Amino acid sequence: MTTPQRRSTGGPRQAAAIFAATLELLADKGYDGLTMESVAARSGVNKTTLYRWWPAKDALLAAALTDSDLLSFPMPDTGSLRGDLLALAHAIAELLTAESTAPIATAVLAAAPARPQLAQVGAAFFAERLGREQPVFERAVARGELDASCDPAAIMDLLAGAIWFRLLLRGQPLTPEYLARAVDLVVDGLPGAS
Amino acid sequence: MTTPQRRSTGGPRQAAAIFAATLELLADKGYDGLTMESVAARSGVNKTTLYRWWPAKDALLAAALTDSDLLSFPMPDTGSLRGDLLALAHAIAELLTAESTAPIATAVLAAAPARPQLAQVGAAFFAERLGREQPVFERAVARGELDASCDPAAIMDLLAGAIWFRLLLRGQPLTPEYLARAVDLVVDGLPGAS
Repeated sequence: MTTPQRRSTGGPRQAAAIFAATLELLADKGYDGLTMESVAARSGVNKTTLYRWWPAKDALLAAALTDSDLLSFPMPDTGSLRGDLLALAHAIAELLTAESTAPIATAVLAAAPARPQLAQVGAAFFAERLGREQPVFERAVARGELDASCDPAAIMDLLAGAIWFRLLLRGQPLTPEYLARAVDLVVDGLPGAS
Repeated sequence: MTTPQRRSTGGPRQAAAIFAATLELLADKGYDGLTMESVAARSGVNKTTLYRWWPAKDALLAAALTDSDLLSFPMPDTGSLRGDLLALAHAIAELLTAESTAPIATAVLAAAPARPQLAQVGAAFFAERLGREQPVFERAVARGELDASCDPAAIMDLLAGAIWFRLLLRGQPLTPEYLARAVDLVVDGLPGAS
């Protein structure tokens, strides 16, 4: 693990170990099994220290999801909108399928609908992620590839939504061919439709 | 409740009551709280009768999801692909937000990632649903609105995925404007992208 990047919430110097313990526990035990006590035990950080920085587990989980290096990926800059969206599609698919991250993503998905606090954590995570994706769309507008009126959130809903839906609801694999076709559909629309 | 439509799996004459009890219990108690015993108790149908038709709760749940009138909606035939996709988008949004159906959809979503059997149930449900959506795309090809090479599953991944992602992961409302814009993006692709 690299030096913790305390990007948005601050936190103690042991942030990397705390965030890793939080996400491991979420993946292992689910949202209900995640407690401040278990994070303290697994990370070796005093519980008092945890509460000094995060008032409750939702705040800690939000910080872990947003700031952990585990779920971050470099934002692409391939020189074209299609290339950037394809790179994003591969990065999202990797997060949802890699052994180290898939259990975290599915644990959040599993817990969110029934638990409003966690839904807020998820919403904050995706809002932050969208902010980091913004330059992809700003560059596309600057290159003349995309109308400035376009809403990046709506575009990412299509692309990320298709990937989540395909894998987790339809139960189908995310092949490179599938990802390329999904990006082409998002960029070009339906072939034959005027 | 209307007369049960025993579309794909057959079942006893009390199928409507059994399916309703199954889906109510899933919504109330979650997947783990759903048992053959509790379905028998709530529906007033003998447990022996249940086991005669469905060997286990996954088979019963699959039948309930696929055959219950609760989750079905009429397939649109508006005369245009865009109109049909917009009607589908509204129907999906209604299922995910209506008081009578939202808890069922989110309970399936919540349980699926961690439970392979339920993932198969979900996959079977969406495969059956896709089969019922097929005429929308066949008519669009026949009208010259869509290339025959197009994959309806990939198109529905974009549309349904965006709606699920927007509501359940991003935590944003599904307004009529949002649904119309999502359909336009799916049909037309990105404005300004060549």
